[in-house]
Amino acid sequence: MSCFSLGVGIGTKNKQEEWLEVFYPKPLLSPSEAIVHAVRASIPNLANSTTHIELSNKSCNTLKQAFNHAGATDLVKIMGFLENSIHPRMLTFLATDDKPSSTPEAYLKLHLLSHRLVKPHAVNIDGIFSLLPNVAWTSEGAIDIKELPERQLQARAEGRTLSVNSVDKFPKMTDYVVPEGTRIAHTARIRLGAYVGEGTTVMHEGFINFNAGTDGKSMVEGRISAGVFVNEGSDLGGGCSTMGTLSGGNKTIISVGKNCLIGANAGLGIPLGDRCIVEAGLYLTAGSKVELLDDQQTIVKTLKARDLSSHHDLLFRRNSLTGAIECLTNKTSVVLNTELHDHN
Amino acid sequence: MSCFSLGVGIGTKNKQEEWLEVFYPKPLLSPSEAIVHAVRASIPNLANSTTHIELSNKSCNTLKQAFNHAGATDLVKIMGFLENSIHPRMLTFLATDDKPSSTPEAYLKLHLLSHRLVKPHAVNIDGIFSLLPNVAWTSEGAIDIKELPERQLQARAEGRTLSVNSVDKFPKMTDYVVPEGTRIAHTARIRLGAYVGEGTTVMHEGFINFNAGTDGKSMVEGRISAGVFVNEGSDLGGGCSTMGTLSGGNKTIISVGKNCLIGANAGLGIPLGDRCIVEAGLYLTAGSKVELLDDQQTIVKTLKARDLSSHHDLLFRRNSLTGAIECLTNKTSVVLNTELHDHN
Amino acid sequence: MSCFSLGVGIGTKNKQEEWLEVFYPKPLLSPSEAIVHAVRASIPNLANSTTHIELSNKSCNTLKQAFNHAGATDLVKIMGFLENSIHPRMLTFLATDDKPSSTPEAYLKLHLLSHRLVKPHAVNIDGIFSLLPNVAWTSEGAIDIKELPERQLQARAEGRTLSVNSVDKFPKMTDYVVPEGTRIAHTARIRLGAYVGEGTTVMHEGFINFNAGTDGKSMVEGRISAGVFVNEGSDLGGGCSTMGTLSGGNKTIISVGKNCLIGANAGLGIPLGDRCIVEAGLYLTAGSKVELLDDQQTIVKTLKARDLSSHHDLLFRRNSLTGAIECLTNKTSVVLNTELHDHN
Repeated sequence: MSCFSLGVGIGTKNKQEEWLEVFYPKPLLSPSEAIVHAVRASIPNLANSTTHIELSNKSCNTLKQAFNHAGATDLVKIMGFLENSIHPRMLTFLATDDKPSSTPEAYLKLHLLSHRLVKPHAVNIDGIFSLLPNVAWTSEGAIDIKELPERQLQARAEGRTLSVNSVDKFPKMTDYVVPEGTRIAHTARIRLGAYVGEGTTVMHEGFINFNAGTDGKSMVEGRISAGVFVNEGSDLGGGCSTMGTLSGGNKTIISVGKNCLIGANAGLGIPLGDRCIVEAGLYLTAGSKVELLDDQQTIVKTLKARDLSSHHDLLFRRNSLTGAIECLTNKTSVVLNTELHDHN
Repeated sequence: MSCFSLGVGIGTKNKQEEWLEVFYPKPLLSPSEAIVHAVRASIPNLANSTTHIELSNKSCNTLKQAFNHAGATDLVKIMGFLENSIHPRMLTFLATDDKPSSTPEAYLKLHLLSHRLVKPHAVNIDGIFSLLPNVAWTSEGAIDIKELPERQLQARAEGRTLSVNSVDKFPKMTDYVVPEGTRIAHTARIRLGAYVGEGTTVMHEGFINFNAGTDGKSMVEGRISAGVFVNEGSDLGGGCSTMGTLSGGNKTIISVGKNCLIGANAGLGIPLGDRCIVEAGLYLTAGSKVELLDDQQTIVKTLKARDLSSHHDLLFRRNSLTGAIECLTNKTSVVLNTELHDHN
Repeated sequence: MSCFSLGVGIGTKNKQEEWLEVFYPKPLLSPSEAIVHAVRASIPNLANSTTHIELSNKSCNTLKQAFNHAGATDLVKIMGFLENSIHPRMLTFLATDDKPSSTPEAYLKLHLLSHRLVKPHAVNIDGIFSLLPNVAWTSEGAIDIKELPERQLQARAEGRTLSVNSVDKFPKMTDYVVPEGTRIAHTARIRLGAYVGEGTTVMHEGFINFNAGTDGKSMVEGRISAGVFVNEGSDLGGGCSTMGTLSGGNKTIISVGKNCLIGANAGLGIPLGDRCIVEAGLYLTAGSKVELLDDQQTIVKTLKARDLSSHHDLLFRRNSLTGAIECLTNKTSVVLNTELHDHN
């Protein structure tokens, strides 16, 4: 039987026994037949379709032995930690990559992204907002918003500070996984569901939303909005902005090619090709009119920024004497004109 | 006897027995006569004017019973938690809305704002800075700055990390109250005393100072400086700036009307009317010269941005070919001229 | 024997017994002969050159007595806390200010900066990146990245949330020292190794990297990049950017003179003299062409921003009608021309 993804996890419920969040230490994409078989054999009543089921101590132990038999040492270790826990444990089984229909499924898909098992836009997360409860993320774990005031009062009366660090549908990624080969100076600014490429450094001013991220080596000091993807070798300067698909009614997906540089406090409203530069402080919206200059710095034509989407080797700047936004290329006017007509 | 506001709370003192902060789980504005009577009856030595008094276990219990008699079930529950606490509890009574004169009074007024009982500028907080001690807000609660080094050393010797999350006169709001119907992705950026309207989402890049906030549904990804108020339905783009009354010697109070949009990395130095847009990346200071265009996009006149304060239906942008700041309207030049002369 | 710096500390090691970080409660610069003698006498096998050595309970106690004999009461108190700790304690001795060669040395130098014992650029930290391990800074202290996944799983199984607040080579400064006379609204944005002057307030949007900082009274709501120094009385507006020596291949060290103002969302790519202003929203790169205006607002000449580096009394703005970057001065064209030629 086919299996898109599988995860054993441990989570938090509210007093109504609703899931607030689930932590999957090692989510699996397209697990081996041996592992699927081990799961099926251990939990006979598991449905054949996408489902999730809470695990008892006993079923955790059975799973541990089955995983051991299947040679899945990582999972054996995980079950060892889980089998004696008094906190709610679960198994989530995704038969196919359909849109998620429960909180545990939604969390598993966010894990797939942050574990780099799928890239942004490569997994179906349609309607995920409605499946994620708004949670108070506190120094004492995830707490249902409605239960928070009493918990805060009780903690204070007992001499503790129950610190509420976030009130959001998405938790911060690093409380679930720190992807290998990354530095993340201020983790509160990366949501679970972000894809942080190996070799990426995210500085204090950097930000990465869910279903967005970087492909590899990258220095991120600006904001990667929901849906935006930054390719290998590109840097985002301090405080720079990329327009997301959630804001502004924008339907074009913004991306940044390879070896680009977005300057500090700049902004980007079009998809960029490779080796492009946006000057510090320049906000380039899709509708900005731009003077296109050839390799002799002669104006070839005036066009909108969106007409230059995904072209390579462009430098965008504002002429500091005329105030015009200019786009410099390394090409003659003949080549440029041909290229632009090709794209019309 | 009149009562402006009343609160029972639990707080932190330094070694000199000075209050560092007070947490009021349920501050009251214009409490009912029954509640004021219950307080008066329980604490016979309470002054008739604005005052605050520390509560013993016994007086907590007496208050609990009096609140019970008055049918104030919320307060009964609170006193139940407080009556057996070994931490300092207090009652603060504000006869009138005079400028605050003590730390507990100042904290009660900040609570009134964040509990949405009063709007920004609607409560007297003159001189509040001098009443708020600079506190180290740590993983072990509020600590006096002078007592911090020894506490840090002791914690380390004992194997704990005493993390100092803020050194400020204002604590973060969410450790005191999370207003209903809000999402706040990164709570460290909202001070107690902020007014966060129902339906407001504050993203990671959003910020709200005290005595400032939003009226209702709003997406805040920019900075709401002290004193600034954003009306229903308006969005602040990522990293945008509003000029506060504390900075720059600015005396005009900045506000944003209904259904406005401030673009990402933009800035605002004038009060905006309803349905206005400031383009992403444009910083509009009060002194900026602006070309006013009518519904035919013809220049009507050149004026300063401050002359357009509080006008409705304006779009501000920088012409990306000429570099001029333009203001577009949906009105003819005749109407525009008349309106502007009316406001002179 | 000469001693550049000395520190007793308590730190964290990974399972391979490698140092992850060291906390020095009171680092010393050029310690007195009495103190150096006390150390030498207490630890006979201490090398004569730069070195660090782990301390036993017994050697802590010996040091305490020797410090007491030397009249160093602060150090006596510290040794009192350390002598009974089960956590690794150490003494680090820097004979000279050579480039650091170990993690404990690197940490001592970062402490010297944040304790304001040396100013940015005044201590040798060459190659410091390679000496600082990338650490997970968590609610349970410093954890080796490789040991993190198991620690997270174990904590969850036991019902705790092990929150990962940063994954970085530098910890946040305030977990090591809060310099006197400062307010730091959001401490996650200041790295150990920052120099925060007395009288400085760093607001939520402020940021200070290592080997960078402020000299005295200052309101920091923008970003002070690695290597940048801001002199007495200068303010950085919300979200403003300063170009660092680590980014953009910039070799010029950016600095801000006395009593300057960098506006909100502005940017700075040249060293500024005293009493200069950069208008809100203007990004001034070194290569920006600027129209220089004299005291009559007449254009004297057009030049690059870098040619105005370190000049006093300049106001930079973008003309909001022509789009040109202008520099206003309070000097006649004759004086201006002479000054500029002097600097060529």
